[in-house]
Amino acid sequence: MDRRLRIGVIGGGSGSFIGPVHRIAARLDGAFDLVAAALSSNPQRAMDEGRLLGFPADRTYGSWRELIARESAREDGIEVVAVMTPNDSHFEICMAALDAGLHVVCDKPLSTDAASARALAAKVRQTGAEFCVTYCYTGYPMVRQARDMVRAGELGEIRQVQLQYVQGNLAEPQPSSGWRMQAGRVGGSLVLLDIATHAFHLGSYVTGLDVERLCADLGATRPGGEVDDYVATLAHYGNGARGSLWVTNAAAGSEHGLSFRIHGDKGGLEWQQEEPNRLLHRRAGGFDQVITRRLDPVMSPGALRSTRVALGHPEGYLEAFANLYVEFAEVVAARLAGRRPPAEDDLFPGVLDGVKGLLLVEAASRSAQSGRWESVGSP
Amino acid sequence: MDRRLRIGVIGGGSGSFIGPVHRIAARLDGAFDLVAAALSSNPQRAMDEGRLLGFPADRTYGSWRELIARESAREDGIEVVAVMTPNDSHFEICMAALDAGLHVVCDKPLSTDAASARALAAKVRQTGAEFCVTYCYTGYPMVRQARDMVRAGELGEIRQVQLQYVQGNLAEPQPSSGWRMQAGRVGGSLVLLDIATHAFHLGSYVTGLDVERLCADLGATRPGGEVDDYVATLAHYGNGARGSLWVTNAAAGSEHGLSFRIHGDKGGLEWQQEEPNRLLHRRAGGFDQVITRRLDPVMSPGALRSTRVALGHPEGYLEAFANLYVEFAEVVAARLAGRRPPAEDDLFPGVLDGVKGLLLVEAASRSAQSGRWESVGSP
Amino acid sequence: MDRRLRIGVIGGGSGSFIGPVHRIAARLDGAFDLVAAALSSNPQRAMDEGRLLGFPADRTYGSWRELIARESAREDGIEVVAVMTPNDSHFEICMAALDAGLHVVCDKPLSTDAASARALAAKVRQTGAEFCVTYCYTGYPMVRQARDMVRAGELGEIRQVQLQYVQGNLAEPQPSSGWRMQAGRVGGSLVLLDIATHAFHLGSYVTGLDVERLCADLGATRPGGEVDDYVATLAHYGNGARGSLWVTNAAAGSEHGLSFRIHGDKGGLEWQQEEPNRLLHRRAGGFDQVITRRLDPVMSPGALRSTRVALGHPEGYLEAFANLYVEFAEVVAARLAGRRPPAEDDLFPGVLDGVKGLLLVEAASRSAQSGRWESVGSP
Amino acid sequence: MDRRLRIGVIGGGSGSFIGPVHRIAARLDGAFDLVAAALSSNPQRAMDEGRLLGFPADRTYGSWRELIARESAREDGIEVVAVMTPNDSHFEICMAALDAGLHVVCDKPLSTDAASARALAAKVRQTGAEFCVTYCYTGYPMVRQARDMVRAGELGEIRQVQLQYVQGNLAEPQPSSGWRMQAGRVGGSLVLLDIATHAFHLGSYVTGLDVERLCADLGATRPGGEVDDYVATLAHYGNGARGSLWVTNAAAGSEHGLSFRIHGDKGGLEWQQEEPNRLLHRRAGGFDQVITRRLDPVMSPGALRSTRVALGHPEGYLEAFANLYVEFAEVVAARLAGRRPPAEDDLFPGVLDGVKGLLLVEAASRSAQSGRWESVGSP
Repeated sequence: MDRRLRIGVIGGGSGSFIGPVHRIAARLDGAFDLVAAALSSNPQRAMDEGRLLGFPADRTYGSWRELIARESAREDGIEVVAVMTPNDSHFEICMAALDAGLHVVCDKPLSTDAASARALAAKVRQTGAEFCVTYCYTGYPMVRQARDMVRAGELGEIRQVQLQYVQGNLAEPQPSSGWRMQAGRVGGSLVLLDIATHAFHLGSYVTGLDVERLCADLGATRPGGEVDDYVATLAHYGNGARGSLWVTNAAAGSEHGLSFRIHGDKGGLEWQQEEPNRLLHRRAGGFDQVITRRLDPVMSPGALRSTRVALGHPEGYLEAFANLYVEFAEVVAARLAGRRPPAEDDLFPGVLDGVKGLLLVEAASRSAQSGRWESVGSP
Repeated sequence: MDRRLRIGVIGGGSGSFIGPVHRIAARLDGAFDLVAAALSSNPQRAMDEGRLLGFPADRTYGSWRELIARESAREDGIEVVAVMTPNDSHFEICMAALDAGLHVVCDKPLSTDAASARALAAKVRQTGAEFCVTYCYTGYPMVRQARDMVRAGELGEIRQVQLQYVQGNLAEPQPSSGWRMQAGRVGGSLVLLDIATHAFHLGSYVTGLDVERLCADLGATRPGGEVDDYVATLAHYGNGARGSLWVTNAAAGSEHGLSFRIHGDKGGLEWQQEEPNRLLHRRAGGFDQVITRRLDPVMSPGALRSTRVALGHPEGYLEAFANLYVEFAEVVAARLAGRRPPAEDDLFPGVLDGVKGLLLVEAASRSAQSGRWESVGSP
Repeated sequence: MDRRLRIGVIGGGSGSFIGPVHRIAARLDGAFDLVAAALSSNPQRAMDEGRLLGFPADRTYGSWRELIARESAREDGIEVVAVMTPNDSHFEICMAALDAGLHVVCDKPLSTDAASARALAAKVRQTGAEFCVTYCYTGYPMVRQARDMVRAGELGEIRQVQLQYVQGNLAEPQPSSGWRMQAGRVGGSLVLLDIATHAFHLGSYVTGLDVERLCADLGATRPGGEVDDYVATLAHYGNGARGSLWVTNAAAGSEHGLSFRIHGDKGGLEWQQEEPNRLLHRRAGGFDQVITRRLDPVMSPGALRSTRVALGHPEGYLEAFANLYVEFAEVVAARLAGRRPPAEDDLFPGVLDGVKGLLLVEAASRSAQSGRWESVGSP
Repeated sequence: MDRRLRIGVIGGGSGSFIGPVHRIAARLDGAFDLVAAALSSNPQRAMDEGRLLGFPADRTYGSWRELIARESAREDGIEVVAVMTPNDSHFEICMAALDAGLHVVCDKPLSTDAASARALAAKVRQTGAEFCVTYCYTGYPMVRQARDMVRAGELGEIRQVQLQYVQGNLAEPQPSSGWRMQAGRVGGSLVLLDIATHAFHLGSYVTGLDVERLCADLGATRPGGEVDDYVATLAHYGNGARGSLWVTNAAAGSEHGLSFRIHGDKGGLEWQQEEPNRLLHRRAGGFDQVITRRLDPVMSPGALRSTRVALGHPEGYLEAFANLYVEFAEVVAARLAGRRPPAEDDLFPGVLDGVKGLLLVEAASRSAQSGRWESVGSP
């Protein structure tokens, strides 16, 4: 790239898990300069935290509205904005950013309901902006290896899909102040919006298949829990494949067990986020292979493109997250330079992936109410 | 024990997977003498195989009816019969054996429908015989360790249950002659009767909880498959715990992935049959512990009782299977000697476990038809 | 086999780890009848324990001398004797058994010094008897798979060998009465005789190579320890390959970590006794393969021959031990029937393997004294 | 920190593995601005690569001498220089940088012989500069957890140490142009300088113990290999602990198997670089614990300080490397601001660690020549 892109961040101040992650990811490959920030919805706190994090004083803003207004007015204003605020504010902020001509990186879930998500998708089409939803786990090289192997037919037709996202954090004593425990800020079912969307997306990303119908069990397993902490689903995919999913943030003692296991006619693939540099390839009629991330043409193109260091040197979550950022930078830089960007299909998740997530959330909620299978619908 | 018990086997001739397993299990701890056999439903083959396996010629029989009739008439006749024939014959053989005053070890599933299973349970009550259904995976010491830990409250109240039994054998070319591919001999849904019953039982054995309601997806995932090879369920347990289950014998490339993962208020336990000597204990607020089988009072009583060799010397499937046999021998020997047998609750699975299996099979079938949740009912 | 072989046991009474193992191993495949026993060097205890274990009263003996004398005199006397006494008695008992015309199964180490071990080997040659030293870990199917793969050239020329046998038992409080803590009964260096011999043998069994020269560090790592609990060696093998070995029974917290890792020009193999059903095949220029034990022609002949149950059903230590017994039975039965026995090269370890073990023990002791490399010598 | 430190890089142009690693590590936490570069010893290539990597044209230099001279003369010149050139140039460049008043980050090995390494240490003392040798594996949080646990006495006195660094890269076809295959540029024994130094350092870092005497086997295992690719040692540590080490870059099929396993009176710790977020804690008399990296006070201070993301989100090699950079930045920034820097003892490896590495290299070489144990000497 000729130069670094200018990026501003909205949200992600102290106490945020995801704020530092976005900032490290933007910085890691040298593709962005972090030049502007509105780090809190509390103006004073926003200014204090900007100073603490070393943002220039004149580009530290007390509100996201101010950031968008003033940066849009600068000659050297930001070209990209990254949104990492509570779920219920994504829609309004992203709409404003798009209207201001910015390219947008938005944390998942895209919004809190399918209707607003579809409106965002329409706005993206209308403005022609680039838009990334940070379903960050698709940035892992071995997830891309899996996707490439499915596409290349190495598993045959996909027949079975198993998805899990098993966390234990809600089973530990909770900070009362976090917005995640306030139903209003979450925008609906916590377990569905916050983590099931990741799992659903991962399954579709790897298999290339969408869920058509599902049947869900949804609720709170913690005694007295008011926030949904458990969802399990049965699912039928577009090609007739069958799947199941178990997602919870209340499995006491669990870490961050996002995983997929898929099987086609010729074999299966299994991946666990907690050991992301390995992909188990089960082969019908043969022995299992352990595919390990490396910088070597034996890897698939998608895996190779998202790998920085050689065989045996583990990469992790921050590198996966940074892969979305560096790919977003490539596409935006190509646009700014009048070049044709790389095909997005192989890159970061976009606004339609965000819409699909909300459709799945709503179908699961309907099914949990009706006790029946429900159709998901298309974006 | 004062002497070995005399046991006869019905079924399990050449080509059978489970036949040699039963015979090794009976022999391993020196508690039984294998003295009589009816190894095939084909009389000539039954005689030939008896000779091959070294059974005495005068106690090798051409049919199970003959075995039961003639052994019952001998002074030194068998005291126990082990039944390992195709599913659809279990009922008739076990009824006859019970009527002949024998104690019975029967392979799972107990029968092919709940009504006949209940009739068997009634017969067991009436005759007062001992009866074991070889849900063999409950013989593993670490499964017993898990059960004992749950009972001792080490996990707190159980909230979530995940069960898997993922095999790949149906995805490989099949021998056309096997009775498992003949719907009639299976007695219903292959995947439900043959393997889902194991998984359901394992979950209940470890948690002490029964499934009250479930919602199931059931069918064939192999193209053109006529035999069910896939079932997934959502489940609600008696205490309000929620669960999910994925069982298949058509996940190409898989081995024998029977596993459970349970979580209570204080932590979780995870066990995989393919590495049976380890039990992962996830502890809320602490680090995971890897509990490994050993002959040491640090193990739970149930684990200790079913362990033969010291720390670091793996035991496997045959030892687990043999644990059911040796426990059955203890109970029968106590009965024969007029002693009070050990409490069965802690030992081998009995006829009621077999009935529950059929109730779950039938509820899953109903749910797959109705597209709704169905109640399981009680034995 | 036409009939079971008659076997007697010497040693292995209560308190013995290895006694029950030998007896289960002999029984597991139905190849032996355990008909005679001299279970302790204390005559009264020997009689009591024989009764407890169900040996016939007239064939329970108060001493090994009596067992050999009286069984040799019976028409239906034992054909095989299994010796599982303390190390310092192996030589005398085995010599007497061989002189009495018996075939012998002897626990390792064969003896306590190379000279007596060589005398035993000469006696075996002279009598023409069959002789097995129970280096039991070579009975594991995956160890045989590894050996077969090396022989077939799948690794290319072997270049590097790493052997470990890491136990922690001596770091735990010790029963004072065990003969292993009495230097006289051990017959020399505990760590060398008792467990390093297993590790050396395993390395040679798999690679087909003998150690020619070694340099050793030997001693006690426990404070105040009088018994050697640690040995590490550098080694040069016959073909120029280099190796290292770490063996201890005082690594606090360890289980039973016997393992090998070997590398040739084309790749490597890694196996750990604690998970014996898996063999990791590292392939130069490709991905690792996980070879799992199964009953399927994809396995090597040696692995297949020593496997009882199908893919995904773990086998363990007892089955490995039993593999030596059943192979010994085949060879002895062939001899008794006048048939040509199977080539022993592929089967159980013999007396020369026992001699080599003592040569390595003595070379390691010399090197630890001299601070230099020492030659091992040949049997 | 108030502002970013200005850093220049020497070496690390295209084709270098370590160049991008240093640059990402410097950038990741926002503590440095990469402002100057001399990327190749070929002036034209140095300029071309600087342009490619986006360094400002006026601070891209054709040689390291020019970089040091001109940056020292600038008002806004670099404060830190990072040296990642071939081994045989480290000494000359570092001496010049120190003489120019710069703080220095130098790749390992510090130099190619102990005498020049000692001279560098003397120069560091004389100039009072900060100096970091990038034994990068000590940057992993779980390595620091291990060190903290040893210091806190959780293992008791350390008795046994096992170190491995097993790579396979030399067993694959080699690019002829790499300086690592040119003995002159390596500066001695490739396997000793390049990777054994990492392993020795890791062992001492974790245990707090230095090797006093060792006995080594050193050579080439590849047929016709002229470069050492194998070293194994026996070692005695200062407190009487015993250790062994296996290091190679020619174990065909291996990845990057750097590991330690240490045992003290109370238990052991085991860590493998390929799965760096886990530390196995073997506890005498109890079950193994799996300590996983997390942002939670249950971790040791050293682990916590070097952790960025929460439980279950893996960190990798780049984050470990960056930990050395960010700690170096803290110390240098404190110095520049006149503040007392944090105690270095807990932070990045320094020049004395570099000297010790060369002493071990030389002792191993002497021992391989003499066939005897050799003393290591102190820095």
